[in-house]
Amino acid sequence: MDRILLAYNGALDTTAAIPWLVEHYGVEVVTATFDVGQGRELDDVRERALAAGAARAHVLDLREEFARDFILPALQAGALYERRHPLPAALCRPLIARHLVEIARIEGTTTVAHGSTRGEGSRASLDDILRTLDPSLTVVAPARIWGLSRAEQVEFARDHGIAISPSADRAPVTDVNLWGRSIDLGPIENAWQEPSESAYVITRSATEAPAAAAHVEVTFERGVPVATNGVAMSAVELITSLGTIAAVHGVGRLELVDYGPSGPATREICEAPAAVTLHAAHRELQRFVTPRDLARLTADLGVRYADLVHDGRWHSPTRGAIDAFVARVEERVTGTVRLELFRGACRVVGRQSPFAAGGESPSRAGGTSRPASAGAEQ
Amino acid sequence: MDRILLAYNGALDTTAAIPWLVEHYGVEVVTATFDVGQGRELDDVRERALAAGAARAHVLDLREEFARDFILPALQAGALYERRHPLPAALCRPLIARHLVEIARIEGTTTVAHGSTRGEGSRASLDDILRTLDPSLTVVAPARIWGLSRAEQVEFARDHGIAISPSADRAPVTDVNLWGRSIDLGPIENAWQEPSESAYVITRSATEAPAAAAHVEVTFERGVPVATNGVAMSAVELITSLGTIAAVHGVGRLELVDYGPSGPATREICEAPAAVTLHAAHRELQRFVTPRDLARLTADLGVRYADLVHDGRWHSPTRGAIDAFVARVEERVTGTVRLELFRGACRVVGRQSPFAAGGESPSRAGGTSRPASAGAEQ
Amino acid sequence: MDRILLAYNGALDTTAAIPWLVEHYGVEVVTATFDVGQGRELDDVRERALAAGAARAHVLDLREEFARDFILPALQAGALYERRHPLPAALCRPLIARHLVEIARIEGTTTVAHGSTRGEGSRASLDDILRTLDPSLTVVAPARIWGLSRAEQVEFARDHGIAISPSADRAPVTDVNLWGRSIDLGPIENAWQEPSESAYVITRSATEAPAAAAHVEVTFERGVPVATNGVAMSAVELITSLGTIAAVHGVGRLELVDYGPSGPATREICEAPAAVTLHAAHRELQRFVTPRDLARLTADLGVRYADLVHDGRWHSPTRGAIDAFVARVEERVTGTVRLELFRGACRVVGRQSPFAAGGESPSRAGGTSRPASAGAEQ
Amino acid sequence: MDRILLAYNGALDTTAAIPWLVEHYGVEVVTATFDVGQGRELDDVRERALAAGAARAHVLDLREEFARDFILPALQAGALYERRHPLPAALCRPLIARHLVEIARIEGTTTVAHGSTRGEGSRASLDDILRTLDPSLTVVAPARIWGLSRAEQVEFARDHGIAISPSADRAPVTDVNLWGRSIDLGPIENAWQEPSESAYVITRSATEAPAAAAHVEVTFERGVPVATNGVAMSAVELITSLGTIAAVHGVGRLELVDYGPSGPATREICEAPAAVTLHAAHRELQRFVTPRDLARLTADLGVRYADLVHDGRWHSPTRGAIDAFVARVEERVTGTVRLELFRGACRVVGRQSPFAAGGESPSRAGGTSRPASAGAEQ
Repeated sequence: MDRILLAYNGALDTTAAIPWLVEHYGVEVVTATFDVGQGRELDDVRERALAAGAARAHVLDLREEFARDFILPALQAGALYERRHPLPAALCRPLIARHLVEIARIEGTTTVAHGSTRGEGSRASLDDILRTLDPSLTVVAPARIWGLSRAEQVEFARDHGIAISPSADRAPVTDVNLWGRSIDLGPIENAWQEPSESAYVITRSATEAPAAAAHVEVTFERGVPVATNGVAMSAVELITSLGTIAAVHGVGRLELVDYGPSGPATREICEAPAAVTLHAAHRELQRFVTPRDLARLTADLGVRYADLVHDGRWHSPTRGAIDAFVARVEERVTGTVRLELFRGACRVVGRQSPFAAGGESPSRAGGTSRPASAGAEQ
Repeated sequence: MDRILLAYNGALDTTAAIPWLVEHYGVEVVTATFDVGQGRELDDVRERALAAGAARAHVLDLREEFARDFILPALQAGALYERRHPLPAALCRPLIARHLVEIARIEGTTTVAHGSTRGEGSRASLDDILRTLDPSLTVVAPARIWGLSRAEQVEFARDHGIAISPSADRAPVTDVNLWGRSIDLGPIENAWQEPSESAYVITRSATEAPAAAAHVEVTFERGVPVATNGVAMSAVELITSLGTIAAVHGVGRLELVDYGPSGPATREICEAPAAVTLHAAHRELQRFVTPRDLARLTADLGVRYADLVHDGRWHSPTRGAIDAFVARVEERVTGTVRLELFRGACRVVGRQSPFAAGGESPSRAGGTSRPASAGAEQ
Repeated sequence: MDRILLAYNGALDTTAAIPWLVEHYGVEVVTATFDVGQGRELDDVRERALAAGAARAHVLDLREEFARDFILPALQAGALYERRHPLPAALCRPLIARHLVEIARIEGTTTVAHGSTRGEGSRASLDDILRTLDPSLTVVAPARIWGLSRAEQVEFARDHGIAISPSADRAPVTDVNLWGRSIDLGPIENAWQEPSESAYVITRSATEAPAAAAHVEVTFERGVPVATNGVAMSAVELITSLGTIAAVHGVGRLELVDYGPSGPATREICEAPAAVTLHAAHRELQRFVTPRDLARLTADLGVRYADLVHDGRWHSPTRGAIDAFVARVEERVTGTVRLELFRGACRVVGRQSPFAAGGESPSRAGGTSRPASAGAEQ
Repeated sequence: MDRILLAYNGALDTTAAIPWLVEHYGVEVVTATFDVGQGRELDDVRERALAAGAARAHVLDLREEFARDFILPALQAGALYERRHPLPAALCRPLIARHLVEIARIEGTTTVAHGSTRGEGSRASLDDILRTLDPSLTVVAPARIWGLSRAEQVEFARDHGIAISPSADRAPVTDVNLWGRSIDLGPIENAWQEPSESAYVITRSATEAPAAAAHVEVTFERGVPVATNGVAMSAVELITSLGTIAAVHGVGRLELVDYGPSGPATREICEAPAAVTLHAAHRELQRFVTPRDLARLTADLGVRYADLVHDGRWHSPTRGAIDAFVARVEERVTGTVRLELFRGACRVVGRQSPFAAGGESPSRAGGTSRPASAGAEQ
């Protein structure tokens, strides 16, 4: 090994990992940074990597690919873990793994290093996916080997001339991307207390949401959301804009408190305003155009799908077979769903589809065209 | 046949049925009226029946029995139709059937007549349950044979000296009882429009709910809710008081729009503030004390249970077997769940149980005793 | 209506139906007869129909289409009712319905009449499928309207100059086709007694089967059986020849005794030597090349598939979605299965596939080529 | 630690483990040997243990307990792994664990050592069950630490004066008990070849089975087999005698070839003549007295049950809940099933039950009493 590919997010610890890897392994370090909609500026990340000693720094915008190849299939399959959680972090891992493998091949290396800031479970999961995609890869986690405290990292960084900006310094203890933000709060001693309000950074609380409800219409074509309020947009744009309005209205908070059979319970929270809203809209439209037995079977397969995503088994043939099943169901999932966002809740208040007998367009039923009325409702 | 037992609700049409049955069949008519928590005064119902020509009028308060034998088993099983609908009307039918069969035996008749005001589906369902319980019964539906219009009924009633009070006159087009209120809105031409606000009579709309959230604690013992905010009460009291507060906060509205493969879609709405709140609390506590695989299996069996209830198969051996399964699971479902009711949503914000590692009591965790803090939260 | 299309099988009752329909409805009768592998000569059936008064007589060989469009999809899906019964009759109904609809359109009629000899359940099922395919069709069942006894039918036939040959006369009380033979024995008073040996006409009993086992190799390509013992053949040929050898060895008998909750139990028997053998081979190969979780899920969907076929819901969108799922699974179901047929049992004794690590070809493992050794094994 | 409890089977390796443990740990060794129906004489096992240096040697006959507490619940639940395998070894592990824990407590030790001869998977499974039952236990596996070859073991034994009898010497590479015999053949390079006939030691091959079929009647009371051919016997007697006759007729062989996604396939074979016969009889009777929807649900839960047993999760609360479910179903599983055992196959040929409409006793239906006719059929 004379070159290591490092998954690089610009934070202090992975920045410090660059000189550390160079010094300890005597290798060239190449970094890869991906824009998956985490909402952080990546402009200066290349320079920061090079300044820290990277030989080359790749920066890729993967948002469209994330939406097309991972988010939309999961949305169509109704992949909600425990029938609730849209799994933003788990859905992003196979995307990241795909590009690490690709860049590793381009760079002619079989050693990949990745971040230390995620929990043990998700790290193991990313390792597994990497090895499934390319069994010849060696995956190293510098932080695990390194074992420095935060203060030692800072000192090591200073010694190596790494700028410690407040923003870059803030260790990203959460997974955040286009589809949502997951925070594994780990073992909790007291499941009686709510998580602190400060645990949520994307969504407003229901009590602080606006006093007036918002109404949004989402239009689907064969299971793909293609427009909001009659305005066509790309999946990334739609997820972003829908997420913004839903977050303001407090929609998209989830909390999973898990049974701990031989120890304390664990708590995971998630903020996924766009995901929660789109799943609600898609599910309602799918039910509206699908016979009940098929709708139920599809929902059950969606639970399986979510389990596969959660367990790092994106590349399982089982997922492929469910995708094929879902593709048939989606052939009819065309139409528009009207949602009310109010005080933390997302509620379907209307649905229409050319494939449903009771789903004629509002223009036929109510005398006004849909886009106009939709505009007025905002 | 020389005597008919008539299920009597005091409304105009079943009142008019009394003289009609007497005249057409030349039989004695005995009425049976049940208090299932429909919230209507039954004091004068006996006199009204006798005045209309009934030989005897039975009036029974079945609320405790309804809660004990039907509501609580369904709550414990997590019996939500389509994972949402608590099925108040369907749960009540086997209770009514049980007592009609019993009174018919006491009265020495094998002919039972029942109300005309419910939809065809639920009428067929009640008929089926009656025949399952006693295959020797003949079930007649006067209104179907009779076929009078509303105006003709009124005239017929006048001719027979039946008082047409506004309240008794109001045909109860809905099923309402302790567990909730179901309204089958039937085929809809336009699934894009929300049901009119006037369709809801128990619950406030989210927008009209109080600006401040309410917090409620529900305590369970082996799956049975036994106290709210630390105050022990009977199941009927608990359902009633919890329903009152949840209704004020707009909690418990449901809408099921169903795919109509060869005709218009159908819409059913339901208001079940206590049921929705208790199911949320019970489900969370059950998950909190149950390993994940068992929690999932139990939830899947709950779907089956709801299907059986919905399909009028309460007496199916399958239900009995699921009951036995659930009874095992419930052995650990002891503890308290803290709920926030706010603007139409019911959200679990705390849970504790002696059977969960992270579920210590607030007094141990936070220094104050639970009942005290609970009182303060209201 | 001035023309009726009659599904005609050449038996006495449907032959007699020709003049009866002409006389009672004053219409032209056109017959349609299908070769679905029932193993009866259809050469003289056209003349017999015309002699009885039919205006035109269509005779179609549908065997290849039956195999391609119905048998193979069901085989690949593992569609065994109650995990055992390959449903030959139910699988054939949508095929027959498809062609009745087609010929009715060609003949410019919307009235279809069909046989009286099957049970009420399957008749209703065929009616349903016909109406699903073409809601404008009127389906009449002469025998139900007619209501003649067997003796009266014979007399009516004699009066109308219909030859009553022993073979044509023998009322076909069973459904038989390429995929097997179903006999609904109806309510039984005594489930303690076996059905009489004479109930089986295709298969030998295990005790009368040859003393030496037969070995057969079936080769699949993407889930389609393409060769036996290394000899490529069409699906129809393969089913026919495999059925012949399996029948000799007593393979393919099934008995379903069904619980009768409020009356006697019912018994259905089935002889399906090729179907039983091919399902065993396909299932083993599928398992051999498929991860366990996917193999199980596929098997569960196969149960659903069989239910849909059994319930006359071939055209359900659910079936289409399962087909798409299965198509993905079948991509790897390529290889050869070696079976031992002996004394009523079909046992897998070897399997190989390019998609399985332990599935190398016998030539690599054992030094001799497969076709050669296979030939020797017979 | 000054005392170790050793699970002792009398074979060379565990015998040699006695002095080895004494020498290496400087502790007292107490042995425990269990008769679980493995069909080996345990008379001299105590003396052999003491001769090898054990301080005390417990020998317990657990056959009745095995049948009552483990085999019968699994039979009633229909616990067949992959819907085929009765899991004799996995069912026996929690029984052995229970008694090891009990004896360890009596002996005042928290260290348990057990045999080395089983595969890694089952060893881990027994370890897990032991720790579930008593988390304070330390489990040691001498052979793993020891790491001697077979020849070295023999030499070590000779040096310590341990008699190497041919029978005791024969390393039991298989798990065998009252319910059957499992042999994990491990990775196979060639799934095209059958296992050698010598792999089977209990059952005859179908081709060597008698030329005449045997008929056996098994009577159940609430799901418990209580008589064969009308002769009442204990569960152990019934399993033993039924196993003997079924084995002669070649019934009870199973082969599971498992997909190896990233390596060779694995093969496990099993001989379980009594288990296969009893499962067939029980399943048929259960279906005969149970509505179809409940029969299917029970069968699906049986698959879960088998998974729990297979995965060493006997003490899972999920199993307890399924047990409660099954107990309800079994309330009606009373009656007699008639089986034909012939040439490797076990086929149900008659069934009767007081709970089935078509299940009257042969005496009522046919004029002769069942026990008499049953005797004649042999």
